[in-house]
This record gives sequence, structure tokens and C-alpha cells, in this order.
Amino acid sequence: SSLSGAQAQAEGGCRAPAVAAVLPAGGSGERMGVPTPKQFCPILERPLISYTLQALERVCWIKDIVVAVTGGNMEAMKGIIQRYQHKRISLVEAGVTRHRSIFNGLKALAESQPNSRLSRPEVVIIHDAVRPFVEEDVLLKVVTAAKEHGAAGAISPLVSTVISPSADGCLDHSLDRTKHRASEMPQAFLFDVIYEAYQQCSDYDLEFGTECLQLALKYSHVKAKLVEGSPDLWKVTYKRDLYAAESIIKERISQQMCVVMDTKEDEEHVGRCLEEMLKNELNHVKVTSGRDLQQVILEQCYNFVCVNVMTSDFEKTQKLLNVLDESNLSILYPVVVISVHFLDYKSIPFGRKMEDLMQIKELAREVKKRNILLCGLLIYYPQDEQKLQESLRQGATIIATLIKGRDSGLIGQLLIA
Amino acid sequence: SSLSGAQAQAEGGCRAPAVAAVLPAGGSGERMGVPTPKQFCPILERPLISYTLQALERVCWIKDIVVAVTGGNMEAMKGIIQRYQHKRISLVEAGVTRHRSIFNGLKALAESQPNSRLSRPEVVIIHDAVRPFVEEDVLLKVVTAAKEHGAAGAISPLVSTVISPSADGCLDHSLDRTKHRASEMPQAFLFDVIYEAYQQCSDYDLEFGTECLQLALKYSHVKAKLVEGSPDLWKVTYKRDLYAAESIIKERISQQMCVVMDTKEDEEHVGRCLEEMLKNELNHVKVTSGRDLQQVILEQCYNFVCVNVMTSDFEKTQKLLNVLDESNLSILYPVVVISVHFLDYKSIPFGRKMEDLMQIKELAREVKKRNILLCGLLIYYPQDEQKLQESLRQGATIIATLIKGRDSGLIGQLLIA
Ligand SMILES: [Mg+2]
Ligand SMILES: [Mg+2]
Repeated sequence: SSLSGAQAQAEGGCRAPAVAAVLPAGGSGERMGVPTPKQFCPILERPLISYTLQALERVCWIKDIVVAVTGGNMEAMKGIIQRYQHKRISLVEAGVTRHRSIFNGLKALAESQPNSRLSRPEVVIIHDAVRPFVEEDVLLKVVTAAKEHGAAGAISPLVSTVISPSADGCLDHSLDRTKHRASEMPQAFLFDVIYEAYQQCSDYDLEFGTECLQLALKYSHVKAKLVEGSPDLWKVTYKRDLYAAESIIKERISQQMCVVMDTKEDEEHVGRCLEEMLKNELNHVKVTSGRDLQQVILEQCYNFVCVNVMTSDFEKTQKLLNVLDESNLSILYPVVVISVHFLDYKSIPFGRKMEDLMQIKELAREVKKRNILLCGLLIYYPQDEQKLQESLRQGATIIATLIKGRDSGLIGQLLIA
Repeated sequence: SSLSGAQAQAEGGCRAPAVAAVLPAGGSGERMGVPTPKQFCPILERPLISYTLQALERVCWIKDIVVAVTGGNMEAMKGIIQRYQHKRISLVEAGVTRHRSIFNGLKALAESQPNSRLSRPEVVIIHDAVRPFVEEDVLLKVVTAAKEHGAAGAISPLVSTVISPSADGCLDHSLDRTKHRASEMPQAFLFDVIYEAYQQCSDYDLEFGTECLQLALKYSHVKAKLVEGSPDLWKVTYKRDLYAAESIIKERISQQMCVVMDTKEDEEHVGRCLEEMLKNELNHVKVTSGRDLQQVILEQCYNFVCVNVMTSDFEKTQKLLNVLDESNLSILYPVVVISVHFLDYKSIPFGRKMEDLMQIKELAREVKKRNILLCGLLIYYPQDEQKLQESLRQGATIIATLIKGRDSGLIGQLLIA
């Protein structure tokens, strides 16, 4: 039975209350060089900690998530939970150190208050608010190992050599990189193991200790199992890490694009051509047809291309926007919608077409309030087949640029291919 | 005399041949998860190593920069040096390990070949090709300390706790974070100290050793001085680090913007208004007037806003583009040029104006070849003063978006405010 009860639960649905998580989020983030504590720094306008909560709550066998925040951030945190519809979250007051915050979280789980929905778990995960990319597999690995060993933690290879300085600021010795690892998060513990360690440990430990695994070793005599983590577990520490996190998130939500066409227009040559071109040019992006829009939304596709072959109005785009609005898809991430139109010089002059389409500015301002980023794209539609292919190729490039950039400064613009 | 000869040289111009740098760049970058070795990964279309070379060569007291690259990358490296006009670079063949590459670099400096421009320096800096943000001050600090102590290296605080695993993959002990540091680059050595260490060290050291400071200690009995480095020294290791580096570079070259107006148009109300608006709205960006364009180019401003109040042509923008082209400013970074025009509905219809301005597409394609990213911006110019202010504010937002994004997929577009 090397597979844990946790996995059995995951497979069988979400039943018994075995696993909880504690997230210390009281830090001030002085290393970041910005006034906002790093866990509250926005990425695509959403605070970092919300991404971490999302990563934990999508794991259905984590029953409770206890977040420790300072009194000063308590109301802001409640606002975040409400706005982004986080579930299974309980808030406790942070302590003055990371260890005291964790201890407060553990106490809330241990002591069943009359009005509390929390109960004492068998295993508790401890994670950082500033490690948003934690995956279910590593969570399962540390929980499974904690059940067997009493404690477990993710580790990674050292990127730099670690050295020990002498008192005069010179090199005393450098450590053998092959014999050391960086200790990362998440970690997991049998609840009794870590709670006992915190109850027994000294004030000095609570003030200056950095490592839960070390407390479990020192006070509960449990040697933690070390689990190789992925590079994704890295901790958002410096401003550059926020940049990296934003780029990773943008990349992740730009992997799929849905092309929406009318049944009628679907039969039009040019609509199909554009879809084919997108598939060829953006071969790293999955291009799906919007025939079953609800399914695409369930798959968490955040990019929509609405193809209007014949019309210069936004009726169909508006219909798509309404569906997206009802789906709540844009609560967590900004959704990009590109309204594509075609310009056939023969039938309508460029200037008129442009004037017709300028109403997109107002529409874009309106849907921005619901976190939808709307842009227009006007593709030149010549008779010559080769020129048409070239227009479509340019259009595909612009679509990719808009999706990848996800830049709210460009909403309501009408780009031309 | 705590100030080093290096600084004296820096202050007195670039005289004596005291300091050289060795850059091992033979690594394969397997941690990145991409096929290209990380030092050759492009950032804004330029290989990472070129940024590192730029950081070293702008320090005038570093006389020679010796780069060790594998035979397979030798021609590519020569191409990089030529294309980006790097100076004072010598290439040597990399060894199969980092230490062997460094040793090859040191040998090239030690042995004065008849046809070599290199000579044995007093102090040698060792740096990484994948640490592009090294500043002159830390280079000076390690060189100064190396002159006094024989060896010196940059260090940084540990971000994660370091642990030592036991043979069975469990925690043996964790290290006291306050007593350890991460060893970073650059490092500097009296040339004789490090060269002797490499000559004496074992094959095992050359294969498996990671730390030059440790070699200096073991074989030359020199205890390196440790110098506190800045977070900027971090090593581009993972794909996320490339994202971070790109964002940092984009941010750095978006700090200044130059507004170019005709003397005549300078007196126009609306041109001045836009300049004022840019200053107010983009208060993190230095907005300068383009009256002395050569001076602005010398200051390494990479963003230009060309204001055309009356005309719908690109005569003035073309003039600016010519000046930029002659300046070679865009060799190292893509330069953004935004050609701003105004739309007064009373005097000219929207459609006509748009058609007049569509030639920007061709112009943009042309200057893209010289690494200039040209976009157009059409600002609505109503009679109503308040509405005008709102148009200008939108224009300022779009200008900021284009400069910050620096996205070549948007060249030739005509945005509308
Ligand atoms: Mg799940
Ligand atoms: Mg200098």
C-alpha cells in the first residue's frame, strides 16, 4: 500500500477529512524592493497569493486551507477570497515570524472551536504563499511520504555553491554541492508530529528557526523524507521573480485558442482559411473550433477569435461576449477576444469599413470591466489567392501577438492585416 | 590606498593593462529545458551572452575579455561579436568542464603567443556568460579585494535553507542559514594565484570541482575575500530566468522617451499638450524634447515619439528614422518609434486620414530590418478642450503600452486614441 489514502480519496472523489494545508502569508517582502508584501503583488491584476490558493484548492483532497495573515491585511485577504471565489479557506492571525504564523495555523486546526468548520487532520501540508506553481503530483508525493515517515519535504539541486565565511568575511570553506540540497516547499507532516514539535520548541526556535523539517527532527525525532521537486516550486523572492511568474502565467493561458464562426460563415472559404492558417502558424497553440463553446470554456480556454466574414457589426462578437460573461471564465484570468472582420475593397471602401468598426472602442471599454480584453482585427481580403494567404498569415501573427501580450492598453484597437 | 589601481585607471582613462576577464561559455544548459545553450538564447532577438559582453566591455579598465566557447559554437560566437560590434574580445576553445574552460582562458592570457594581442594581466576577473546584469561597482570591488587578498568573490544571502540528506534520502541535518552564503560571480584573482592553482590542481578538480575560490584556497593557500553582491548578479539558469531577464531589459530601456516636434509645430498647442500629458501620465519615464537629437541618442534613449500636428505624411518621421539609422543606436536594442498624427474631423474625414496613413505598414517593414519598431498613433483632436485632454490621455497610455511591450508583432499598426 505505497499509494496513500490521499490518492485513494482523490480517485474516489473528495470524501474523508484527512489532509489540510497551512499557508503562512504574514511576510513583509522586504527583499522585493517594493512596498507591497510580495504575496499581495498583482500579476495580471490579481494578487500572487490568489494563484497559490487556486493551486491548492483545485486539489480536491485538501479539505481545509488555513492562511495566516497580519491583522492589517485581514480585510484585504477577505476581499481576495470573495472576489476570486476561493473555497475551503480559513483565516488566522499571523505571528511576528513565519514559525509563529504556522503555529497559529496548526492551533486553529487542532483546537476545534465551537463555531469553526475546521477539524484536526491526519496530515498537514505547509506551503508558501509565494510559490504559486505547486502541482498536485508533488503535493501527493509529500503527503504520501509524510504518512510513511512522519514528515517530508520537497528539495531541489543547489544552483550556486554554498560557502561558509569566516568571521573576517573571508572564505572558510565551500560545501560539496553533490552532498547538499536546497529545501523547498511544500512540506507535509503527520499532524501530531509537527504540532508536538511546535508545542515543545523554544522561543528561540520560533523567532529564528527557518525550517519545519528541522523542528520535526529536533523535537519529534522524525527524519523527514526528502522528495525531489520540480523547478516550478521556486519561491517568488525578488522583483525579477514577479516578472518570471507573470510570463509563465501568460504563457500557460495562451496555449489554446478557440475560433468561433457562424454555421453559415463556416462554409465560407476565408473563415476556414484563417483557422487553418492559425493552426499552421501557431503550432505551439491548440486551435479549436467554437462549435461547442461550453465545452471549450470548461477546458479553460482563455482566448477567442470571433470570425465575421460578411458583416461590419459586432452582433456575433456580442453574443460570444455574453456567453463568456455568463460563464465566469474571466474571474481568474483576463480573457482575450479578437473580433475579426474582412475588407473587400471591391464592395466597401476602407474608410467606411473603419468607421463602421470604430464602435469597438466603446464595447471594449464596457467588457474590460468584466476582465475581457477585446480587440478588433481587419484582414484585407483580395481576390488574388496568394495575396489572401499573405493577409491571413499577417492576421495570424497579429492574433498571436495580442494573445501572448494580453495587454489591456491595446483594448478597443482595430489592427490591420 | 584602499582605492585600487583599477579605479585609478578608470578615473584617469584607460591606460595600463592590469585587468582581464575570462568568461567560460561552453555550457550546454540542460537545466533550461531548451535545445539552445542558455548563453545563446535570444532576448529581444539578441543572444544572452552579448548582454554579458556589453556589461563587461563598458568597463574601460577591463582590457581583455577572453571567452571560452566550444568548437561547434565558435563561428556563431564570431558572428555575435561582429554583429553587435563587441570589442576587446578573444576567443579560446572551451574544455569539457567549466574549470577546463577557465583554465584554457587563463593559458591564453599567460602564454604570450607571437600573434596574440593578449598579455598576462595583474588581476583576472572570472565571470559567467549567463549573468548579464553585472555592474561596474561590484567588478571594481572584487578586483580591489583581489589585489589586497589575492582572491575575492561575490556572495549573496541564501534564499532557501540548505540541507544535507542522508544516504536513504532523508534529512540528516539542515544548515544554519546565518552561517552560510551563496557563492556568486564575478570573482577576481591575482593572476599568479589562480593560474598556479589551476596548474597544480588534479584532474578530479578539473572534472568535478565547481568553485574557483576553493581551488585558490586549496592550492595557493589564499583565503578569498567575500564581497556582498546585489540580487542583479543572479544566474540565468531556468527558462523563467530568461523571462525575467527579458522583462528587466525591457524595463531598463523604457525609462526614457524623446518627443520630437518641428520648431513650427512645437508652437502648436496640441503638440505641447501631448508632451505635458506624457510627463504627467508616465511619471516613471523621463520625457525629453528632441531638440538636440544627437544628445538624446548619446544618452541611449531607445524610444521616440514623433509628433505631426498638421500633416498626414511621414516626411518628418522619415527624417527621424534616418538620423536613428545613422546613429547605430538600434544595434544593441530595438528602438521604438511612434509616429503621432491628429484627426480633426472638421477638416478631413476619418477614412481619408486612415488611408493616407496606411503607407506606415511598408515603412515599418522597411525599418524593421534595422531593428527599429515603427507604429502609428492617430489621436482624435476635438474642439472641446476637455475631450481633447481625454484623447491625449488615451494617446499617452497607448504610447506607454507600445514602449513597454516593444512587440515586433505590432509594427506598422495605426492605433487610435
Ligand atoms: Mg483534484
Ligand atoms: Mg567605464
